[in-house]
Amino acid sequence: MRTVDAYAATSATEPLIKTTIERRDVGAKDVRIDIAYAGICHSDIHTVKEEWGQVTYPLVVGHEIVGVVAEVGSEVTKHAVGDRVGVGCMVNSCRKCENCLAGEENYCLEGNVGTYGAVDRDGTITQGGYSTEVVVDEDFVLRVPESIPYEAAAPLLCAGITTYSPLHHWNVGEGTKVAVVGMGGLGHMAVKIAVAMGAEVTVLSQTLAKQDDSLRYGAKAHFATKDEATFETLARTFDVIINTVSAKLPIDAYLGLLRRNGSLVNVGAPAEPLSLNVFNLLGGRRSFSGSMIGGIRETQEMLDFCAEHGIAPEIELIEAARVNEAYERVLSSDVRYRFVIDAATI
Amino acid sequence: MRTVDAYAATSATEPLIKTTIERRDVGAKDVRIDIAYAGICHSDIHTVKEEWGQVTYPLVVGHEIVGVVAEVGSEVTKHAVGDRVGVGCMVNSCRKCENCLAGEENYCLEGNVGTYGAVDRDGTITQGGYSTEVVVDEDFVLRVPESIPYEAAAPLLCAGITTYSPLHHWNVGEGTKVAVVGMGGLGHMAVKIAVAMGAEVTVLSQTLAKQDDSLRYGAKAHFATKDEATFETLARTFDVIINTVSAKLPIDAYLGLLRRNGSLVNVGAPAEPLSLNVFNLLGGRRSFSGSMIGGIRETQEMLDFCAEHGIAPEIELIEAARVNEAYERVLSSDVRYRFVIDAATI
Repeated sequence: MRTVDAYAATSATEPLIKTTIERRDVGAKDVRIDIAYAGICHSDIHTVKEEWGQVTYPLVVGHEIVGVVAEVGSEVTKHAVGDRVGVGCMVNSCRKCENCLAGEENYCLEGNVGTYGAVDRDGTITQGGYSTEVVVDEDFVLRVPESIPYEAAAPLLCAGITTYSPLHHWNVGEGTKVAVVGMGGLGHMAVKIAVAMGAEVTVLSQTLAKQDDSLRYGAKAHFATKDEATFETLARTFDVIINTVSAKLPIDAYLGLLRRNGSLVNVGAPAEPLSLNVFNLLGGRRSFSGSMIGGIRETQEMLDFCAEHGIAPEIELIEAARVNEAYERVLSSDVRYRFVIDAATI
Repeated sequence: MRTVDAYAATSATEPLIKTTIERRDVGAKDVRIDIAYAGICHSDIHTVKEEWGQVTYPLVVGHEIVGVVAEVGSEVTKHAVGDRVGVGCMVNSCRKCENCLAGEENYCLEGNVGTYGAVDRDGTITQGGYSTEVVVDEDFVLRVPESIPYEAAAPLLCAGITTYSPLHHWNVGEGTKVAVVGMGGLGHMAVKIAVAMGAEVTVLSQTLAKQDDSLRYGAKAHFATKDEATFETLARTFDVIINTVSAKLPIDAYLGLLRRNGSLVNVGAPAEPLSLNVFNLLGGRRSFSGSMIGGIRETQEMLDFCAEHGIAPEIELIEAARVNEAYERVLSSDVRYRFVIDAATI
């Protein structure tokens, strides 16, 4: 066991504090990573505030991790000391169910082992990336191409794969008409990735405030959803809509923006049930779908795709001591577009 | 104009009565059909009772029509006098929108012209199949293979295509695990067609009353949805669920029956909005979708498929004078599985 520094939540209501946690010894198949950067995902905040269910405190969150391999177990073959690597939303899975065998460990039928707050194989609770080190099974460690800016690589491990996976699964490519709902950490990555795939991208944001950014990242258009005319202007326009918003949106209005065979794909996870009129699915053979992160193989594919296309998230690098302030700013949508903690300051 | 016999609704609350209606003269591209049989679809009942919106009375419903070509216009090339033909849910469309051009006139962006209760090109209201004759543009007339039993062919024009189309679109084939929700006019056709496509079919019905029928039509299993254990036993089992029920079902429970990438496809159209928890879409990348009848090309494909595989609906043939009694029996689910009116009795 190694004692390492970390920022942890101690309750649902108190600020994160600096503390220490234990990391397990490096097993035969493990990789010990010196963490360089850790992204702040809205999920981290939902989790520490127990908005998605009870958690065991103290809890270190963070599932957008990049760093350098510091040590490898005796049977590790995929990674070597000195490699630039990443860890995303999961650190293990059953590896035996039909979904794991298909390389889609994110949909593991036993539930994948989350990077934080999950029960690990040894019965301990996993602790995430707001820390200086982490020990992870090599199969759940990704190679981060050197051409991706180091500090910007972290958010790819969640925001990147969460948006890449549905764009890829729904066959987005040259000429596909894609709308991205919500221009935040996930949304801006969805725009960049869909544009790189050749799609014609429209951003649907509450206001026009981020219009310049949308166009700079390659979107063809940006519309304000506060303006009801948007839903008339864009009726039956899109093949795929990626909805990154976790709030309770009027689903029927968004379904109306889909062409025949179009899919509205939620990657945001609203806590409340959503209501919809089935007639909006019947007309145009539309679908309302969901997608949750991505498998390990697909995550590697996404990293390589981003390297090839020169895509990286827009980030604001912060010292660890500012994490609670950053949380407040995420909650008020005051970040363009992802906070990344410099782990050297933990 | 020709005056022909028909059974019409005169208000939302009164029984259908025998009357006469006018059919237009046969235009250059028209086919006049001597109707032999007309199926009774639940949609007919929803429509005459104004449950789906206001209608203009008197109204003759019926959109499952088979008969023989009695006369053709001067430019008709697809059909000849004496041919056995059918007419389904639509008799025209704009023919110019992207969906019509793709051969999916059912999703015409201007709205297809329904076989009854719709405004036709000449401004008249279309009148359906509970009648002795109908005049229809040849492009919306189907060829009915002689090997399909004549009186049983009618329901294929709605119940057949409504279930064939989603099974086909969602790539049901050898080994696909399909569930059919609701064992009625649509449901029993979904079972027969999915079985013929090579799928492993399970029927989900309220009770076990129709279990013998399900198995006789080739289903592998039949479960009662009134039994809550069904939803545990069958969790994460199906690739495609065809929901033929128009009542407000607990969608979350049915989504839980889908495997990764599975789709719950509604062909039933509940009047009320449905509620669902997005987490059930995210987990397993599931979809909630809709499908509405099918295009003309696909309807012909379905008829040929049914002929090739020896598939026909189970019907109860009635005299026209019993139509109101039949409506009552449809409403109490007392029909196995489709009423067909013998047009010779109109």
